[in-house]
Amino acid sequence: MNTAFFNSRASVRSFSSEKHLDRETLDCLLAAATHAPTTGNMQLYNVIVSTDGAAKERLTELHLGQPAARNCDALLTFCADVRRFGKWCVARHAENSLANAGGRLTAIIDATIFAQQFVTAAEQAGLGCVYLGTVTYNIEGFCKALGIPEGGDVIPLFSVAVGYPTEECVFKPSDRLPLDAVVSRDTYHDADNADIDAYYAEKEQREDSARFIAENNKSTLAQVYSEVRYPKELNLSLGRQLMQAIAYSE
Amino acid sequence: MNTAFFNSRASVRSFSSEKHLDRETLDCLLAAATHAPTTGNMQLYNVIVSTDGAAKERLTELHLGQPAARNCDALLTFCADVRRFGKWCVARHAENSLANAGGRLTAIIDATIFAQQFVTAAEQAGLGCVYLGTVTYNIEGFCKALGIPEGGDVIPLFSVAVGYPTEECVFKPSDRLPLDAVVSRDTYHDADNADIDAYYAEKEQREDSARFIAENNKSTLAQVYSEVRYPKELNLSLGRQLMQAIAYSE
Repeated sequence: MNTAFFNSRASVRSFSSEKHLDRETLDCLLAAATHAPTTGNMQLYNVIVSTDGAAKERLTELHLGQPAARNCDALLTFCADVRRFGKWCVARHAENSLANAGGRLTAIIDATIFAQQFVTAAEQAGLGCVYLGTVTYNIEGFCKALGIPEGGDVIPLFSVAVGYPTEECVFKPSDRLPLDAVVSRDTYHDADNADIDAYYAEKEQREDSARFIAENNKSTLAQVYSEVRYPKELNLSLGRQLMQAIAYSE
Repeated sequence: MNTAFFNSRASVRSFSSEKHLDRETLDCLLAAATHAPTTGNMQLYNVIVSTDGAAKERLTELHLGQPAARNCDALLTFCADVRRFGKWCVARHAENSLANAGGRLTAIIDATIFAQQFVTAAEQAGLGCVYLGTVTYNIEGFCKALGIPEGGDVIPLFSVAVGYPTEECVFKPSDRLPLDAVVSRDTYHDADNADIDAYYAEKEQREDSARFIAENNKSTLAQVYSEVRYPKELNLSLGRQLMQAIAYSE
């Protein structure tokens, strides 16, 4: 069995200025991704494609200046979408059953499966991609910039920046936790302190981890993650925004 | 560019009784999938692997009797998981920043990306998979059956049934909406009635659609989807369960 592609892939954040993604290729990859699994074949998603320089520039600002948003060939913002399905229901004298939290959460899963299938299809075609999770830091800003109707029936979740990798790009797969950390057998394995030590040992011993700790003036790597990169205030804020959209009711 | 794999893939619901998935192969595929993109390299997920006949039988009941859950070689239940990360934080004198709605919603996206990468790796290795969305119909039942701790820090989202396809299995990709239905250019394209007619025309004209309408005693295909398969009551119920887990606070 050959899993080499999966084991060696890596996100790409800098893109070629010489080789560019054309619309035909992009559409071919998007069409391929629509064949990903989807709940009841409902395809509860929409992806907004930004290729224009000025549009990418506006979105780059919303993405807190991340250069990949500006330098990619296409910035794709994936949305959970129950709105099109709802319009179909209304037009066909059917109850609009998904315009609620259950429907929207299903759509979040649908949109994410679609996005990941796109990323894999693109990567296997020689393109490079990176997810930008900063959409949920400011859902209202992205909705305004992308003309997304108010209410929760279309929720932007994240963007994916796509382009050909620069020639200098070295695919260095990120370190990952040992398999035991993320796989349970039969029932959920609730880690104890010895497990935690074992799961995170390699990550904590990496050279760059020591650098992150020093740079951020912290004493442990976990503090860098939970107090600098993904602090509680940020998570409370993005939770409020997403929950408001998911629970929206007219 | 070759997107043939993606365009011709299909979910598999019946599995070979002769060729079986062994643990080494499964672990190799799961390890490959851990290299999928993940928020800040935090891997906010856990997958619970059920291969034992009695365990699969119990889960099949919770999956409303769907035969794929019983007949697969491995039933994988993918969970959004901020618990392991939280334990790491506590053990390393760091604030547990993700035990809230924002962290859990991020984990839902992380777990789904991981699951879809597993599905693609498995399918490209000749296995067949099908997502079973019925986990969120009864989150409490799945938590009990799988030993998932109470609270919202581990949320089972869906199962994926895996095995080798039967020899008679014909890969017939599901119909999909035209690309315009799910792709917007520059800004969100808010469909009007003419768009809706165009998007759904092919689906509505399929022979099996006429059969579904007749079997369910409905007058439109949208009614079959929204009043029989995915009715409002079901969505309200699964929305309540998921929102309760996501918003859980001690």
